[in-house]
Amino acid sequence: MGGVRIIGIDPGLGVTGYGVIEVDGGRALHVCHGVIRTRASDPRAARLVALRERVCAIARETGAAAAAVEAGFVGDNARSAMALGEARAAAIIGLADAGLEVAEYAPLLVKQTVAGFGRGEKEQVARMVAFQLGLAEPPSPADAADALAVAITHWAQGRLPR
Amino acid sequence: MGGVRIIGIDPGLGVTGYGVIEVDGGRALHVCHGVIRTRASDPRAARLVALRERVCAIARETGAAAAAVEAGFVGDNARSAMALGEARAAAIIGLADAGLEVAEYAPLLVKQTVAGFGRGEKEQVARMVAFQLGLAEPPSPADAADALAVAITHWAQGRLPR
Repeated sequence: MGGVRIIGIDPGLGVTGYGVIEVDGGRALHVCHGVIRTRASDPRAARLVALRERVCAIARETGAAAAAVEAGFVGDNARSAMALGEARAAAIIGLADAGLEVAEYAPLLVKQTVAGFGRGEKEQVARMVAFQLGLAEPPSPADAADALAVAITHWAQGRLPR
Repeated sequence: MGGVRIIGIDPGLGVTGYGVIEVDGGRALHVCHGVIRTRASDPRAARLVALRERVCAIARETGAAAAAVEAGFVGDNARSAMALGEARAAAIIGLADAGLEVAEYAPLLVKQTVAGFGRGEKEQVARMVAFQLGLAEPPSPADAADALAVAITHWAQGRLPR
């Protein structure tokens, strides 16, 4: 206790990863990670509202005092980009509803922060997250590992609330 | 009074159009229209939260009982599509916070509903909205006229709450 908890989010309309770490002094501890799924058979509006509510609840339940979301989009599919944008906004609003300021980090920065300037593939990110948080195994699924990486990036940027 | 009020939204990160009509029996009356602007100099998260709050406030203040948002995206720019998706989600969540179910209509359907199968250019949509609502002049700016067209489309689809 006494540390600052950071929630990281890797948004997606179908699957959103979340990860919470606790930073105390010079080290970061793993708190929890997981994914939020929304049903493709539900109306888009209902999925976004549900995602917002789950993100808000997780942020509150874990006592997060800082939040970061992966920004940007890799690719050129406009339909995918719009869905990602919708999920991002739902996550951001959910975090704001939990009283948090929301930082945003580009995917490249997140990968470089946890995995250096190497290839930064999905498994490499998960392995480096496990190493940095002292976990016995890489966190899974990949979206949750990415979310922990986003939280670690926020810590690395040194922009934590006092 | 006694009619059902419908709020239509044409979302955009910089400029979101809104329009409210009141449907009573076989006709629709104009209630109000306008635009919500967010500051490009503000952080993305702050803009989305502000947009959500304004949409929710307008829906509540106007007594809307039904809501519709323009869905889809015309173009192939992934960055623009993501920004539009973010604005759409913020608007949808704002309407949901006001207790409304949110219908979504593709831009083509909205244009065809108010302007038929003609060219459906921006000015044509505004002129047909003015005609259908008995306004002396086409509503402006174009985003607000489009939002009224979205509300008219919802009416035309016959999916109003009882």
